[in-house]
Amino acid sequence: MEKVPRPVIRRLAVYLRCLSNLEEKGIKVVSSKQLASMLQIKDSQVRKDLSYFGNLGQRGLGYDVKKLSEKIREVLGLYKMWSVIILGAGNIGKALANHKRLEQNNFKIVAVFDSDERKINKQIAPGLKVRNVSELQQFVKEHGVDIAVLAVPASVANDLACELEKAGVKGIVCFAPTTLTCRIPVEYVDITVFFKTLAHSIVNSSYNI
Amino acid sequence: MEKVPRPVIRRLAVYLRCLSNLEEKGIKVVSSKQLASMLQIKDSQVRKDLSYFGNLGQRGLGYDVKKLSEKIREVLGLYKMWSVIILGAGNIGKALANHKRLEQNNFKIVAVFDSDERKINKQIAPGLKVRNVSELQQFVKEHGVDIAVLAVPASVANDLACELEKAGVKGIVCFAPTTLTCRIPVEYVDITVFFKTLAHSIVNSSYNI
Repeated sequence: MEKVPRPVIRRLAVYLRCLSNLEEKGIKVVSSKQLASMLQIKDSQVRKDLSYFGNLGQRGLGYDVKKLSEKIREVLGLYKMWSVIILGAGNIGKALANHKRLEQNNFKIVAVFDSDERKINKQIAPGLKVRNVSELQQFVKEHGVDIAVLAVPASVANDLACELEKAGVKGIVCFAPTTLTCRIPVEYVDITVFFKTLAHSIVNSSYNI
Repeated sequence: MEKVPRPVIRRLAVYLRCLSNLEEKGIKVVSSKQLASMLQIKDSQVRKDLSYFGNLGQRGLGYDVKKLSEKIREVLGLYKMWSVIILGAGNIGKALANHKRLEQNNFKIVAVFDSDERKINKQIAPGLKVRNVSELQQFVKEHGVDIAVLAVPASVANDLACELEKAGVKGIVCFAPTTLTCRIPVEYVDITVFFKTLAHSIVNSSYNI
């Protein structure tokens, strides 16, 4: 398969959310135009994105919601349950630990860590008690963690990332506003980006493409 | 100015975060290559993105960090403080109400609303008490809110969006996993997208471009 650009992969994840919504409503077929309007992009972009994965649609009929959804899950690697730990039991860590849509999408939070004595051993979400970060290495070795979330201050994020990489974690979702030097894949989440993009849309009234 | 595509606008917001980090470190000039490595994209993409806004760099020298930062802030409409309300005082609402980087980036949370009697009147963040959603319309009229955040269940998100639009709110950041029918600009935030994109990177080891 041709190498798929990152923006396409990101959109695949969004298509998947839209397809799940359609499936829940019992809708079986969707056109590129409908998907485009849900993502606020052009329908030619949808057709181009999906053409990377072979001939998934039927001209004039649209895409089979279930088949397209399965194909995207396969491409994204969602055929297995991913084991996730969260570092940082603050507000962001707590919101993620309680975010039901993560497990529904095959990302299971198996542990939360913090260094703050006041937080350790407290329940942060159903079935999840905050662990001492000193247990991190051993936990990762014993449980084979796939993904770690960094919901910690920027000042400690990079040291933790290096430690996680050494311990064998395969990828990081980083909420700290910094750039990590580790070599495993990292996704940076900066919530302010959504607000800034929206501000631009409002100022330029360029929302409807 | 030529119409700027949405993915470029989104990257501008990310460039801005990187530039702020550089400014904090006292770095005055940055090359397209450095910016590219921070964003994990090609440097040709950085040069193309920034060329929309005139000749901002100097060949062989790179971009002036301060000037580029100011230009991007101007393009994104960050020359003013945006007034933001949050609907939903759950875990996501609480994390946002306490997210210092929003105000640092000119998005000021002025109120949080909920319909749950147990949450109303409780302090959710420094200086912010949860208000009854029944006061929403009047609050928006009196205070001229720019942006509303929907951190509510999908089942009530669209009705609230319509109400907000009528009240004169200019744009919405939507955390609910649904598609809104209102006509004001909406930015959808789906945290699972970051996890799915990361899963793909891990599976395909296609991280380093």
